[in-house]
Amino acid sequence: MIHNLALVSSKAKIGKNVKIGAFTTVHDNVIIGDNCVIEGYCEIGVSNHLSKGKRLVIGDGAYIRSHSIFYEASCFGEGLVTRHRVTVREHTEAGKNLQIGTLSDIQGHCKIGDYVRFHSNVHIGQKSIVGNYVWIFPYVVLTNDPHPPSETLLGVTVEDYAVIATMSVILPGAVVGNECLIGAHSLVKGKTEPDMVYAGSPAQKICSTSKISLHDGSGSAYPWRRHFHRGYPADLVSQWVSDDLR
Amino acid sequence: MIHNLALVSSKAKIGKNVKIGAFTTVHDNVIIGDNCVIEGYCEIGVSNHLSKGKRLVIGDGAYIRSHSIFYEASCFGEGLVTRHRVTVREHTEAGKNLQIGTLSDIQGHCKIGDYVRFHSNVHIGQKSIVGNYVWIFPYVVLTNDPHPPSETLLGVTVEDYAVIATMSVILPGAVVGNECLIGAHSLVKGKTEPDMVYAGSPAQKICSTSKISLHDGSGSAYPWRRHFHRGYPADLVSQWVSDDLR
Amino acid sequence: MIHNLALVSSKAKIGKNVKIGAFTTVHDNVIIGDNCVIEGYCEIGVSNHLSKGKRLVIGDGAYIRSHSIFYEASCFGEGLVTRHRVTVREHTEAGKNLQIGTLSDIQGHCKIGDYVRFHSNVHIGQKSIVGNYVWIFPYVVLTNDPHPPSETLLGVTVEDYAVIATMSVILPGAVVGNECLIGAHSLVKGKTEPDMVYAGSPAQKICSTSKISLHDGSGSAYPWRRHFHRGYPADLVSQWVSDDLR
Repeated sequence: MIHNLALVSSKAKIGKNVKIGAFTTVHDNVIIGDNCVIEGYCEIGVSNHLSKGKRLVIGDGAYIRSHSIFYEASCFGEGLVTRHRVTVREHTEAGKNLQIGTLSDIQGHCKIGDYVRFHSNVHIGQKSIVGNYVWIFPYVVLTNDPHPPSETLLGVTVEDYAVIATMSVILPGAVVGNECLIGAHSLVKGKTEPDMVYAGSPAQKICSTSKISLHDGSGSAYPWRRHFHRGYPADLVSQWVSDDLR
Repeated sequence: MIHNLALVSSKAKIGKNVKIGAFTTVHDNVIIGDNCVIEGYCEIGVSNHLSKGKRLVIGDGAYIRSHSIFYEASCFGEGLVTRHRVTVREHTEAGKNLQIGTLSDIQGHCKIGDYVRFHSNVHIGQKSIVGNYVWIFPYVVLTNDPHPPSETLLGVTVEDYAVIATMSVILPGAVVGNECLIGAHSLVKGKTEPDMVYAGSPAQKICSTSKISLHDGSGSAYPWRRHFHRGYPADLVSQWVSDDLR
Repeated sequence: MIHNLALVSSKAKIGKNVKIGAFTTVHDNVIIGDNCVIEGYCEIGVSNHLSKGKRLVIGDGAYIRSHSIFYEASCFGEGLVTRHRVTVREHTEAGKNLQIGTLSDIQGHCKIGDYVRFHSNVHIGQKSIVGNYVWIFPYVVLTNDPHPPSETLLGVTVEDYAVIATMSVILPGAVVGNECLIGAHSLVKGKTEPDMVYAGSPAQKICSTSKISLHDGSGSAYPWRRHFHRGYPADLVSQWVSDDLR
């Protein structure tokens, strides 16, 4: 299952039933779980002076698409899925079932919860804290430096179920509250109230998310877990459906 | 003409006078026309559960630069040109002479006309419909989900000769009218009138495109086909010149 | 020091103590200085009809990370550092100690001073002129076409010590003045006054940079060289410290 044109270190710990594609490099200090696929042209376990010899751990059932780069000293729960050309730096701690879109750039030194989805070309700055069930759409940047350049890093916090739409910038130290929706092309500063829509540059509070209707008129579009269930496990969906959601 | 470090499936149908670079992978279910160049580090014909075994067809005279990825189940007319690291997903149907800039990400399930130009780092969401002679500049995103995340996809339509400048976001279901110009850093919603300039976030109608003068003062800059002819065939340019354009 | 799966032209001039990674291609018309590292999956010295056989020159001590692409006919002073997947086109002339972040796309035909830092995913359009000690943050685009598409290219000028924050667009022909700070998500037109903060879309003058305090309250955050010294040589830092800065 390991292509003869892959370069896999004999020191790497590779689980059962792992497939590794052509022209992929797996470095020494890596643990890959069972039933993983790592496509071609990837580099897994790059070291630098910040990784300090800490292992890269990729949980069971990962699917890493081609041309992706992962540094040492990060840890991913089971069910990681990436698209192409993702870059994930050292000291990224992520829960289970993380999805990372094409070209996304996770700068490391950050924490990511369970069932988080990053779409294409998302930039997660260092010191970011991302909760569970969060959605971040293309070309969103989580920043961290309040007066660039400096040695001060104030990471962004994104709370559970929050959604950040395309090409928004979240300023250093901002907190995107539980179940918030940030509209496309917004600039967010400070702490947003939960369950609210914010939009604009600078972003302002627009209304409660419950005021946004589904396109077919069949009720409110938020909380999104009322109607969107693709890719989540059945027990979680059951819980969502039985929750007393608006 | 096929580098000895390229991995080319014997099932792929490769035309005459085709050059394939080192470390490129060509999968089974691919038809490549005559006189094509595919540089190194590319993956051509990636399959997934959505491509359903439909072929990737690349027309004559294509030039695909290095590190690019094309999925199965897409079709390109003659004269495709890409720069580096483009990603093109399944079910992309494109006309002739498409140009795709470095890092652009075409999400598939979309239709693209003839002589379309995507500059660097353009994101074409699923269900987009792009007309003929369209120009889309860097970091533009065509979105599709009116209340993310959801199962509803409302693609963007971009009509013939329209121009979308750098870092604009086009919201789900929007229609950018014929020969419109969308200014840089704009957020476009709804349907724009033809031949008009829109700009801002949210974008507003500014004026007729005919009011924008060429930098050297030699007349109106729009319709752009009055003065910009590089890369178009002579018969098309003759027709443009003979058209009764402002 | 040259991996046996690297493809290095015998015509390329490679300095002493140079390391070249697996799956990297070095073309003919390249001069690489001493003590350089070029990681895997790179292409160094790509030619095209615009490079006209002019050499690519990479100064001593460069560190080019994986998946990067450099064209012929560019020149870099000593101490170049890139992260992953950078693309640098022909006729880029850069001073010493340039740093280029992951995914950045330098379109060539541009001049870049000494000690310049481009963070991730920066787009430098053709005809840009970037001074010394400049900082450009993620997803910033320097544009050049005043009425796209056209044959007119009016490059952006960024003067010494200027800082452009995340996801700003600098319009064609604009001049970002000495020691200016452009806020995140801004759209800049025309010439900005030195030492001023500009922000918004379109950007407006907000205040003197000296009014921005460090997060810990220990004085003004600008000029940034008062307090930020990481990565600069000791003699330069000494000079900065002894300068009569606010």
